[in-house]
Amino acid sequence: MDTKTYTQQEMASYIDHTLLKPDASRDDILQICREAVKYRFASVCVNPSWIPLVSKQLKGTGVKTCSVISFPLGSETPEMKAMEASYVIGQGADEVDMVINIGAVKSGDWELAERDIRAVTDVKRHALVKVIIETCLLTEDEKVKICKIARQAGADYVKTSTGFSKGGALASDVALMRRTVGPGTGVKASGGIRTLEDAQNMLAAGATRLGASAGIEIISSLA
Amino acid sequence: MDTKTYTQQEMASYIDHTLLKPDASRDDILQICREAVKYRFASVCVNPSWIPLVSKQLKGTGVKTCSVISFPLGSETPEMKAMEASYVIGQGADEVDMVINIGAVKSGDWELAERDIRAVTDVKRHALVKVIIETCLLTEDEKVKICKIARQAGADYVKTSTGFSKGGALASDVALMRRTVGPGTGVKASGGIRTLEDAQNMLAAGATRLGASAGIEIISSLA
Repeated sequence: MDTKTYTQQEMASYIDHTLLKPDASRDDILQICREAVKYRFASVCVNPSWIPLVSKQLKGTGVKTCSVISFPLGSETPEMKAMEASYVIGQGADEVDMVINIGAVKSGDWELAERDIRAVTDVKRHALVKVIIETCLLTEDEKVKICKIARQAGADYVKTSTGFSKGGALASDVALMRRTVGPGTGVKASGGIRTLEDAQNMLAAGATRLGASAGIEIISSLA
Repeated sequence: MDTKTYTQQEMASYIDHTLLKPDASRDDILQICREAVKYRFASVCVNPSWIPLVSKQLKGTGVKTCSVISFPLGSETPEMKAMEASYVIGQGADEVDMVINIGAVKSGDWELAERDIRAVTDVKRHALVKVIIETCLLTEDEKVKICKIARQAGADYVKTSTGFSKGGALASDVALMRRTVGPGTGVKASGGIRTLEDAQNMLAAGATRLGASAGIEIISSLA
């Protein structure tokens, strides 16, 4: 258990303030942008369709614009993911959270799994790329292997979960991912992180970024 | 309740034999292709990453290749959906099942909701386009309005559900969609159709296509 205590601003700086529900409205998106600026979250993380709006809202604030791509299934070709990444970066995304080709992993097609990640890291320019491995669908061996591949392919972060599958972030997975990628690559924990205790546990396990829609709740009790 | 009886081949001809789980393997995909050819389902419906494989397997069999795009959230821009549709059609998709921009509907941005559908119908060439409205997230008024827009924008089908949200196909929604689009546009019921009775109810309500991963089970008791 983590004994480190965080100030509100420290904790906020780890959090991607996230709203990925397909029925989120423009007002909902504007609201999380205002919250992110007020509390200085790391980024606002939304679906591609909102990137132009969010990028404009956050300009000059220091809060980053983060887009998911091939989300939440990851079942597109490398060429499609490259097009999507180029597009959202062109629209103002500073960070891109992509989902791996889970089916390729399940088919033992590691060549495709790697090419898929490289398709995005190859077009990222100055953007950060986070590679969502969807831990709840992978075996331990698959988690280790895809994390190594992601690191070698130039991922800036490996990320646990989409939040749209059977399970979210587990501290044990975060620790495994941290051990696998070493200190030079980020680990983002996401999916089911709802309380300050959840957030502290993930950071203690080795996470360096948190994805949460409950960012306000998480930081509210901190000074 | 439907009193019409179907032969096995009649029922199979309505069904898009569907496998959209992100962790489906190559062997799983090959299996549903073999089943679709054997039972003469309408199509095999898969994620974009499998389209080249499925298209090759089904060549000359009469079974169509169907790809979802912007699936299951629909929260991409019209430009991204156009790129994705062009890409999968170029890879061999005969049918494209796209998800509407649900957030645009929820924001009252009907201009965007329409432009989003037209982005796909404009590039469809000889392919069929099915427009997934995700009924479980819409009000009755929104369902009617988006069905009218889809029809005007050249959709070949309106489709109830992704199967990845809070609810699937309801006979009442199928009937509403059929009344709204009239006889000239298809209605595809999808999400939670697991039994022959489910399938019969949807057809009785006005569906002209069914999406199901339980196709074999649905037709198994028919002669």
